[in-house]
Amino acid sequence: MKRPTIADVARRAGVSKGAVSYALNGLPGVSEATRQRILAIAAEIGFNPSSAARALSGASAEAVGLALCRPARTLGIEPFFMELISGVEAELAARSYALTLQMVADQEAEIAVYRRWWGERRVDGVLVCDLRTGDRRVPVLEELGLPAVVIGGPGGTGRLASVWSDDAAALMEAVEYLVALGHQRIARVGGLPDLRHTEIRTEAFTRVCRRLGLADAVTVPSDYTGEEGARATRRLLSSPARPSAVIYDNDVMAIAGLSVAQEMGLIVPADLSIVAWDDSPLCRLVHPPLTALGRDIPAYGAHAARRLLAVIGGAAAGAVQDEPAHLTPRGSTAPPRGR
Amino acid sequence: MKRPTIADVARRAGVSKGAVSYALNGLPGVSEATRQRILAIAAEIGFNPSSAARALSGASAEAVGLALCRPARTLGIEPFFMELISGVEAELAARSYALTLQMVADQEAEIAVYRRWWGERRVDGVLVCDLRTGDRRVPVLEELGLPAVVIGGPGGTGRLASVWSDDAAALMEAVEYLVALGHQRIARVGGLPDLRHTEIRTEAFTRVCRRLGLADAVTVPSDYTGEEGARATRRLLSSPARPSAVIYDNDVMAIAGLSVAQEMGLIVPADLSIVAWDDSPLCRLVHPPLTALGRDIPAYGAHAARRLLAVIGGAAAGAVQDEPAHLTPRGSTAPPRGR
Repeated sequence: MKRPTIADVARRAGVSKGAVSYALNGLPGVSEATRQRILAIAAEIGFNPSSAARALSGASAEAVGLALCRPARTLGIEPFFMELISGVEAELAARSYALTLQMVADQEAEIAVYRRWWGERRVDGVLVCDLRTGDRRVPVLEELGLPAVVIGGPGGTGRLASVWSDDAAALMEAVEYLVALGHQRIARVGGLPDLRHTEIRTEAFTRVCRRLGLADAVTVPSDYTGEEGARATRRLLSSPARPSAVIYDNDVMAIAGLSVAQEMGLIVPADLSIVAWDDSPLCRLVHPPLTALGRDIPAYGAHAARRLLAVIGGAAAGAVQDEPAHLTPRGSTAPPRGR
Repeated sequence: MKRPTIADVARRAGVSKGAVSYALNGLPGVSEATRQRILAIAAEIGFNPSSAARALSGASAEAVGLALCRPARTLGIEPFFMELISGVEAELAARSYALTLQMVADQEAEIAVYRRWWGERRVDGVLVCDLRTGDRRVPVLEELGLPAVVIGGPGGTGRLASVWSDDAAALMEAVEYLVALGHQRIARVGGLPDLRHTEIRTEAFTRVCRRLGLADAVTVPSDYTGEEGARATRRLLSSPARPSAVIYDNDVMAIAGLSVAQEMGLIVPADLSIVAWDDSPLCRLVHPPLTALGRDIPAYGAHAARRLLAVIGGAAAGAVQDEPAHLTPRGSTAPPRGR
């Protein structure tokens, strides 16, 4: 799937590259019949006439693409992506690069977007979010040769460049803190199960709970929405072996969990400790404010954008580690009642 | 400030448009000396060689621009913009248009972005958010001739197309509902004071309170952040004439207000009724869930995008009204204690 070039059009049409250029630009120098034939060939091999000039000029698009594969309603409420975008954007704006944003329904649609963007030379590179286990986008991007930086990992990024943060270390820090407070029954409400970072966190949670001798360390999967966060919390708090602490994979679900505790007449933190992931300002909006695993998401986005601009400029790919999330204890965690 | 064209470069250089095209595309047909002279002239008059090909081809950019002038930290937590963008994007994607997103520090920076986008033919049109009183962007966009749709109004949009929603009617509905519940002391925490829709809401609030005979109808200005929403609420709840109901100009501040009430030992809704604006899923995350003025923001974004594509296609400008926000009563509003 190499991007069709003006040379491909010229070869098929049996004319010079200059003639193709004249034809596509509507300039004199080729007959109308030849112009029509060249346009037809360009269309046939996917050399989009409307973007032909861009490719022709050999100039860069001076744009970076970001395709997001999340339902619109989730995206709206999830501060992570807007914070990430703001960091990406700050870095790009300083270099006069534009950010082209597209929301897609699934990975197939996302792959189609990448092919089109690259074929039409609409972007010089892409940032890839929400890495999955066995992600189909990775081999396609490798094959296209489209410069890319994956935001996520470690692992599963093939020959693509990546920026990652140690989610396993962060999760262990949170569990160790809860155990130090005296908690023995800790549950977790996880994010979308097929995301690579969910898998990393789930493995780390199982491992640290086993190491610390915690029984029944359960992870309830979810889709990051408040609705599922609330449902998972109700289920956990209604079980005979009710956890005394719950770790949530984002802050939206943690807030939903806090509301469910209030609705069920439980006091946070005396009856239930809550830890959120992604320490957006939402965590400080609620009462009590939430203990959270957080880091500077705009800075993470800026880091990824800098890497991408370097890769576009010819730098070698490779995985670069960003800072891990750190735990900020607030009013939602305390020793369990009776300690 | 007309966009420089290839004809301008040709005239200055004393060559044909074809020669300029060959020169910019690095094609044979002009001497190296002439090529250098043409490039210099192009640079001098702001005919960017890297975007020259795009303008040359006469093709549309097949992209729409959106510049957002809000601090990154506010944007991240504010569901409104991501929901709006998701609606815009859905409409654009169906027509194979890309969305180019840029965050800007102030209106001057935003105007510079518009000039560059249009000069380099990076976008075919723009969506304009956060209309201000005496907005400086309006005359600039009129002068540039860059197709634009303002999301906001009514009024203050000059000759530009706009899509607006009747905020005054929505606010009156909320106040009338609270008065029907028995509230006599109603306060409001408003958004950024220089935004046109804040002004419209403030005028409507004053008017409806006067009409219904409410004393001390006070609006406390804010910047939409949770911090300022909390601060304004503490001030209102500490005053001798404590309001029994507060209307907030967004949902983030309403949630902050709910937390302040809890922190001060007040019961919502018995001691304090709360109404939020922008009924994002955040309003249903908290306990009690918030009564809110809401409407379908993705649909609003899609409507604006459709209008913009029509204007790009040559449709006449004009103001089109979208549906007003409607009140959804939930657990945060009730008759005041003692009624």
